[in-house]
Amino acid sequence: MKDRLSDTMESVKSTLSPLAPLVKRRWFKGLVMAFILFGAFWGLPAIARAADPTGTDTFNANPNSAVNMAWTLITGFLVWFMQLGFAFLGAGLIRSKNQTNYWTKSFMDFCIASLGFWAFGFALMFGGSKLFPGLDDGNAWIGFSGFFLSGGAYDVSTIMMWFFQMVFAATATTIVAGAVAERMKISAYLAYAFIIGALIYPLYGKWIWGGGWLGSLSIAGAAGARDFAGSSVVHMVGGLAALIGAAMVGPRIGRFNKDGTPNNIKGHNLPFVVIGTFILFFGWFGFNPGSTLAATDLRISVIAVNTFLAGVTGAVVALYWVFAKTGKMDIIMGCNGSLVGLVAVTAPAAYIAPWAAVLIGAIAVPFMFATNHVVERVLKVDDAVGAVPVHLGGGMWGMLAVGIFADGTYLGVKGLIAGEIGQLILQLVAIGTVFVWVGVTAFLTFWAIRKSIGLRASREEELQGLDIPEHGIEAYPADSSITLGGSTPVVPKALPVTR
Amino acid sequence: MKDRLSDTMESVKSTLSPLAPLVKRRWFKGLVMAFILFGAFWGLPAIARAADPTGTDTFNANPNSAVNMAWTLITGFLVWFMQLGFAFLGAGLIRSKNQTNYWTKSFMDFCIASLGFWAFGFALMFGGSKLFPGLDDGNAWIGFSGFFLSGGAYDVSTIMMWFFQMVFAATATTIVAGAVAERMKISAYLAYAFIIGALIYPLYGKWIWGGGWLGSLSIAGAAGARDFAGSSVVHMVGGLAALIGAAMVGPRIGRFNKDGTPNNIKGHNLPFVVIGTFILFFGWFGFNPGSTLAATDLRISVIAVNTFLAGVTGAVVALYWVFAKTGKMDIIMGCNGSLVGLVAVTAPAAYIAPWAAVLIGAIAVPFMFATNHVVERVLKVDDAVGAVPVHLGGGMWGMLAVGIFADGTYLGVKGLIAGEIGQLILQLVAIGTVFVWVGVTAFLTFWAIRKSIGLRASREEELQGLDIPEHGIEAYPADSSITLGGSTPVVPKALPVTR
Amino acid sequence: MKDRLSDTMESVKSTLSPLAPLVKRRWFKGLVMAFILFGAFWGLPAIARAADPTGTDTFNANPNSAVNMAWTLITGFLVWFMQLGFAFLGAGLIRSKNQTNYWTKSFMDFCIASLGFWAFGFALMFGGSKLFPGLDDGNAWIGFSGFFLSGGAYDVSTIMMWFFQMVFAATATTIVAGAVAERMKISAYLAYAFIIGALIYPLYGKWIWGGGWLGSLSIAGAAGARDFAGSSVVHMVGGLAALIGAAMVGPRIGRFNKDGTPNNIKGHNLPFVVIGTFILFFGWFGFNPGSTLAATDLRISVIAVNTFLAGVTGAVVALYWVFAKTGKMDIIMGCNGSLVGLVAVTAPAAYIAPWAAVLIGAIAVPFMFATNHVVERVLKVDDAVGAVPVHLGGGMWGMLAVGIFADGTYLGVKGLIAGEIGQLILQLVAIGTVFVWVGVTAFLTFWAIRKSIGLRASREEELQGLDIPEHGIEAYPADSSITLGGSTPVVPKALPVTR
Repeated sequence: MKDRLSDTMESVKSTLSPLAPLVKRRWFKGLVMAFILFGAFWGLPAIARAADPTGTDTFNANPNSAVNMAWTLITGFLVWFMQLGFAFLGAGLIRSKNQTNYWTKSFMDFCIASLGFWAFGFALMFGGSKLFPGLDDGNAWIGFSGFFLSGGAYDVSTIMMWFFQMVFAATATTIVAGAVAERMKISAYLAYAFIIGALIYPLYGKWIWGGGWLGSLSIAGAAGARDFAGSSVVHMVGGLAALIGAAMVGPRIGRFNKDGTPNNIKGHNLPFVVIGTFILFFGWFGFNPGSTLAATDLRISVIAVNTFLAGVTGAVVALYWVFAKTGKMDIIMGCNGSLVGLVAVTAPAAYIAPWAAVLIGAIAVPFMFATNHVVERVLKVDDAVGAVPVHLGGGMWGMLAVGIFADGTYLGVKGLIAGEIGQLILQLVAIGTVFVWVGVTAFLTFWAIRKSIGLRASREEELQGLDIPEHGIEAYPADSSITLGGSTPVVPKALPVTR
Repeated sequence: MKDRLSDTMESVKSTLSPLAPLVKRRWFKGLVMAFILFGAFWGLPAIARAADPTGTDTFNANPNSAVNMAWTLITGFLVWFMQLGFAFLGAGLIRSKNQTNYWTKSFMDFCIASLGFWAFGFALMFGGSKLFPGLDDGNAWIGFSGFFLSGGAYDVSTIMMWFFQMVFAATATTIVAGAVAERMKISAYLAYAFIIGALIYPLYGKWIWGGGWLGSLSIAGAAGARDFAGSSVVHMVGGLAALIGAAMVGPRIGRFNKDGTPNNIKGHNLPFVVIGTFILFFGWFGFNPGSTLAATDLRISVIAVNTFLAGVTGAVVALYWVFAKTGKMDIIMGCNGSLVGLVAVTAPAAYIAPWAAVLIGAIAVPFMFATNHVVERVLKVDDAVGAVPVHLGGGMWGMLAVGIFADGTYLGVKGLIAGEIGQLILQLVAIGTVFVWVGVTAFLTFWAIRKSIGLRASREEELQGLDIPEHGIEAYPADSSITLGGSTPVVPKALPVTR
Repeated sequence: MKDRLSDTMESVKSTLSPLAPLVKRRWFKGLVMAFILFGAFWGLPAIARAADPTGTDTFNANPNSAVNMAWTLITGFLVWFMQLGFAFLGAGLIRSKNQTNYWTKSFMDFCIASLGFWAFGFALMFGGSKLFPGLDDGNAWIGFSGFFLSGGAYDVSTIMMWFFQMVFAATATTIVAGAVAERMKISAYLAYAFIIGALIYPLYGKWIWGGGWLGSLSIAGAAGARDFAGSSVVHMVGGLAALIGAAMVGPRIGRFNKDGTPNNIKGHNLPFVVIGTFILFFGWFGFNPGSTLAATDLRISVIAVNTFLAGVTGAVVALYWVFAKTGKMDIIMGCNGSLVGLVAVTAPAAYIAPWAAVLIGAIAVPFMFATNHVVERVLKVDDAVGAVPVHLGGGMWGMLAVGIFADGTYLGVKGLIAGEIGQLILQLVAIGTVFVWVGVTAFLTFWAIRKSIGLRASREEELQGLDIPEHGIEAYPADSSITLGGSTPVVPKALPVTR
């Protein structure tokens, strides 16, 4: 027994040993120090400065806050679940030799982006908005309160808001994974994930949603660009970052011929593609209706139905469009059609009637095809899963659609059909803003990563697939055989780990 | 740059080109014209005639509408998610060579059925019910208001109702996919999907749920046939359409021997079967408890638990039943047992106590086995995934169970155990009505499709699997190789698309 | 037609025939008799003694009960969905030859455990707590009212409580499946599932959650051990039962070398592992925030965010920890890291601020590694999927974390950082209680099963994989071929069933 105990102590000691080299590294020390400093200023005195951390006062002031809180959290859970949808969709569209790599990116990116959004992003985005307690400091361009959810931000409403916004930031982040799949290094991708969550996403978000200049810009009677649930904030930002990332990392080996004509690289699992689309569709029921942050706003039923109708119409139009052209029922196009319909209806979902949602979903399909054509044939960029046509193309159309189809019943937003032109102009300004801001910052981000840790796996790794070189784990071992070395990552040095 | 721009313009033009042959086709023109006419009458003046499109009045009249709206939408989302469950379940039970075809059917059927339900079905089903604004016109047999959700139906409550009813119509639709799998043409199946969503499902639904004759028929003191959440409306309708579709398309090659004895055609993926069942079970928590359309009706907890208990009891009884017979733990039977228990408890879920749910789930299992025997050995119909025993067999038993186990605590519905016989008679009338209505209309539907576009793939296509001939996409490419031609479906004519 | 009818009758008769041998068996008769007796006493007079089976009185007394009911049910649905997460996770980590077996265990265990919890467990756990109607009889050690949810327990609040508690019991149950995978007999495993759901889980639960001695034990000013959502009740109980089960069934062939050093047996499907983790993470949003049983307690947003932050921090720390050691991004460790963070934050989730959740998630990782080391290298137990490090290791740390990080804002629970030591001592008492109670009862359970039906499959079955010997179903048939014999399990004796 005593032997076993000393064995155990030895084990624990050796378990902790990897920390030793880590804490010796300078960058690591710096990072930890920065976090501690932030913690000291914002984290530790949190309790004393907390606004309403139990919610008793909030509930007493407004008993309806209970149903609104439940609604916002549950729809937020659904939005988060879209992460799994993106993972399935992209994984199905790429080859089996890069599955471990892709699933790692899909799981870890929201982990890392959300920590960036917790530490910095949320404060940059909503500081100064005064929407909830602890968000007092900031201006029309940038916020600076709410870091680490501490101090006055330790409040049930502020924290609810953080959760709902965080799942949106995570969605924007993961859109990029598919476009750069099969050749971007995992470490490079995870570094990007932190920066988009901490910086790129939050600042555009600030301008239109966080009390910033874009949301209050007034033109021809229209009071601010409007993006109800994120056609621009989430999908254009993610889609444009995807385009830039894919362009900078370069096309996969074999994707383009010498004369610039493209080849098609088949995915490994068609069911995954449809499963992913199903889960994304499911999550969209949280994405759009949840964006009221309130169930007392009964418009949520209209929003849910508009979302649904645009999605199914997109699918039907895309499927039969390709069928008319090729005679084949291409379900990959059907899935992409439903997704681009959903992306497009995201900005206008609350401002329109159901018949307009059907139109918006239908028109989104040629937007997707045209964007795809530009990306693949004009720009000659390798977007491995078609993320850019769906998210950037659909997102642009969605922003425009607000300026066209908003019928004036909800919050006074009026498009062309309600006789107003101002909103459409504001929407164009918002589109331009995304292109400038994300164009510049995403370029700088990927450029800096290329210069430091490098963007792209080696040619050998790419040909072999990234799973073994980067992760040491085969996704589908032909034979689930037994290898030497146990599952503990901290095995005694004498034993080779062959996994 | 200028070159690139003109290239882009060219691309966009060529992208839109497939529309050209399409708009030349007569049937297509007719379809579009019909939609436009409908739109002109019902769609465009919607805003002026809208009842309460933002919900402000509805909320002020009854603040509880917020929690009821949230409840109905969220449970509706869960019901919709069952589509993925059906897809997994059926895909697991069939062969790998028909996966693309099956997933296409599973995804596109709800898209198409729901558009049919939006345009026509909902108005036929609830017009005249006066349950919500904009549903004024109709009689005990058919409704005629609410088309395209326009006019007075542009109202938060009516649109909420549409959403919840639509996901039920979509469920009935997709039940058929499994029974006719591996040989029905995709175009035939999608045509059927439109008709069941627009016509077959809504009219029976009208009679029992939409203020029709069956729901108000009075016999021996019982006031109307009762189907709480759709054992007949969804499951018997879908199950009977599945039986008729499977009979008319004929058995798969090799399913029956010359002497009429059946063979078993193994599925390709057992985990898919269990995953599908898990997801269906999850969705049932929306299906039954959500059917109150109100969380203020606290009976929802009893409904949820009754649903759960019937499902688990069905699984346990079916698993050990087969184990007693064969000595093997057949999880496919366990899954089917849970599903038939869930189907059976759907009609009585609200009217019974938990102990009765356990009994109903247990008794559903022999109903399933007996129905399976009749379908496979007596009728010699090839139901590829066992949809008929679960949905038609379980649905019949569920309708009867209302007349037996309703204990009188909820809405005054009383079965045999509460000393009343009238309800049981009404339930038999409802069962007979389904057989007559769906028997006739489903037969006519499949007959008309057979005469026009044809029901069944050719022998060569069936032997090869439908994936390549109908879709051009292999589900699991052995080698995810690179082929000529990019992903855009509108490639220049000189380039062969080899996907 | 008449022939067909008599055929049908014959079929139905033969369908029911397996019951004949079953009802002849003594143990089966005894079981049925016991259930009937229970039913007679508690089940049948249920209606007369029911408290509030429709909820009208409950709602009128407190209209907020609607939103609380909806919240509790929906979060309960999410918790139940974790069953699918556990199934995916474990299935991915084991070999393809045992897939049917594993999915069968994963699906049937919650069915059987929940029936045990319905009949006995709930009454033992909450009888005497007087928390809801029909739970009057019991003491600080054991309850005895509420059996079969009958009598006074036929009440909307009591039944809601049953549902939420049942999904927790089912979670504890299924944790064991992974640890004993690939060699425990299915019948042995299902017998264990009944006992943990009916007896082992409920009694510890009674002591800390059901008004028992542990929840009211007072030390140094702290009033009772606290486990907000089940780090001990669910995860330590399940994790310790897993350890004992895995130790008693013995290691898989080839898992350890003669010198006691371990080998790694690779799983068959990496995507399954990540999918399972995603679904578990999703379910945790129900697990912890739902444990308030009330949306009017707005603390739910803080609980959701704490849960999330601990999960993502665990993932990031584990991933980079292993990366620092091996240079590989091991996503299996990333997934386990997120799970151990989630397990750990389960007990303290409501009592802490977000910054503490980040710390708790980070510190959970070395707890996991150390526990793994002890299990694999010191105890030399074969835990096939690493369930013990995650659930037992993480659960212990979670219980301790309450005593350290509780900041006193919620329900007065104060840990070291709020200047109190008493809570930490109580948490240690709770940990010790789990070890004694589960240690003894799980040992006795597995011992009794070993003596009666046997714990372990034969060497031949294990080498071949359990799928064919125990289930007769191959998970992934290489060729989905046609075999003689239809799908009905009750085929005429002349026809061989070859599935």
